[in-house]
Amino acid sequence: MKAGALARRLRIRPGSAVRLDRIAPDWLPPTLAAADEADIRRRTSRMLASSLDRLLDAQRLLWASDERAVLVILQGMDAAGKDGIIRHVMSGVNPQGCDVVAFAEPSRDERRHTFLWRSARAAPARGRIAIFNRSHYEDVLVVRVHPGLLPGRAGAGETRPDARFWRRRFRDINAFERHLVANGTLILKFFLHISRAEQRRRLLARLDDPTKHWKFSLSDLRDRAHWSDYIAAYEDALSATSTRHAPWHVIPADRKHLARAIVAAIIARAVDRMRLTWPEPDERSRAELEQARRSLLAEAGAEH
Amino acid sequence: MKAGALARRLRIRPGSAVRLDRIAPDWLPPTLAAADEADIRRRTSRMLASSLDRLLDAQRLLWASDERAVLVILQGMDAAGKDGIIRHVMSGVNPQGCDVVAFAEPSRDERRHTFLWRSARAAPARGRIAIFNRSHYEDVLVVRVHPGLLPGRAGAGETRPDARFWRRRFRDINAFERHLVANGTLILKFFLHISRAEQRRRLLARLDDPTKHWKFSLSDLRDRAHWSDYIAAYEDALSATSTRHAPWHVIPADRKHLARAIVAAIIARAVDRMRLTWPEPDERSRAELEQARRSLLAEAGAEH
Repeated sequence: MKAGALARRLRIRPGSAVRLDRIAPDWLPPTLAAADEADIRRRTSRMLASSLDRLLDAQRLLWASDERAVLVILQGMDAAGKDGIIRHVMSGVNPQGCDVVAFAEPSRDERRHTFLWRSARAAPARGRIAIFNRSHYEDVLVVRVHPGLLPGRAGAGETRPDARFWRRRFRDINAFERHLVANGTLILKFFLHISRAEQRRRLLARLDDPTKHWKFSLSDLRDRAHWSDYIAAYEDALSATSTRHAPWHVIPADRKHLARAIVAAIIARAVDRMRLTWPEPDERSRAELEQARRSLLAEAGAEH
Repeated sequence: MKAGALARRLRIRPGSAVRLDRIAPDWLPPTLAAADEADIRRRTSRMLASSLDRLLDAQRLLWASDERAVLVILQGMDAAGKDGIIRHVMSGVNPQGCDVVAFAEPSRDERRHTFLWRSARAAPARGRIAIFNRSHYEDVLVVRVHPGLLPGRAGAGETRPDARFWRRRFRDINAFERHLVANGTLILKFFLHISRAEQRRRLLARLDDPTKHWKFSLSDLRDRAHWSDYIAAYEDALSATSTRHAPWHVIPADRKHLARAIVAAIIARAVDRMRLTWPEPDERSRAELEQARRSLLAEAGAEH
């Protein structure tokens, strides 16, 4: 399946009401539906490799043309595979032009500002890619499931936030993202969709593997108990904030390798489609380049 | 004239089309209309002093209650009196809780981000006052008069920006300010309105006074030649961005002392009207305070 078809298939149409139970976390592209698991794995790994090649070229051009920026937002339940995606996508780009921003629990200083402050500060500069590992969406997800996190956050005095409160946050998120897009940033948002059963397997695997113990936290289990609250919060947030300028993609993530291949393919295609061009040297730079060439050639002549 | 009446009189009604030639830079409140200049000066200086007293109290409460923030935005032509206002208002607040942010020409790094990036980063934290000396409005004022400043700014590739371009910027400014307000920031915007003749007098005074030479720049004269372009840009910007949540005030600024008194009065009144309250200690803190008192009293007893 081509990246374009995948992107269209997995993108949430602006204005539509998302129902996550209608999207299978173990969905397969039609071209892979008949394949066995080993075959799926082989083909997704080829797909990933070719997307990463494409992405590396696209990033060089993004940097050189120095006009646009790219912001990738990753959201998902614990163990949905966000870190793995970042590891793989990053292996395909030059880290000098790419920033990964992990949205841990907000700092004291961050809590003294509005919930968009952290994202606004970390927005990518021209020529750069930023990957948000979690993002300002945490403020309409974990905070929605646990409204006890609200007090103490600037302007969020409400202890029992109502529907209007969340709508206002969605509105502000949309305006913020629209501003970035209107000023040259490409925004791509991915929700890594795993099943509850797959999360259980992955959390157990963390417990079984001493090299993964550091990734395990009891809070993962606590949040697991709120699974359906999270699903409801995600459905509402994805429905309200999938816009023409900054659409959400729901990525079937029960197969890690497939999720990685799909995300890389969608990013590579989107950066490609920005149709960036190598900067044309102007008259003066052209003369300077020519002079530099002559000077270097003369040097080589002297050495022979 | 009371601060409330002044604020209402000088505030730009949201949605109205501002005509600056209908607002006199040497306007006087009705209560001062019959007074001579010496009397005006005496009475405005009393007004300033009492507003500053009020502001100092209001700021302590702002800091202690730790819920809201205040953002003051100052715009005006060169020599309109922005620095003087800041000097006088700052003399009335504790500098530990107040940040002055001067919007000089954007740095290389700032130009690599959107035009709201600098303001978003500098937005005041809970409990604090920020004063912007010029602001994101420069991007719809000086940049509008000199569109040659646009290229090189993130996402502002357009070399001939049209009306839609500026409307988009106004829309983004309004959304940004609304977000701050919805999250607890009080925004007060002041345009210091001076006449062209008064600017000439002040610029000449800078040339005549060696202690003011440092404030003079030839670019002031260059911009003076664009006076009517600036007035048009201001009229458009003030009309489009005076909102219910973040209104503009046009301050008659041909009399420096009056402008300072009015701005201080409007700020002091607005902070007062936030109706902040001293935080109530909870049961536990109350017990701790009581224990601290007993412990200190016991100490004193030992000393006697």
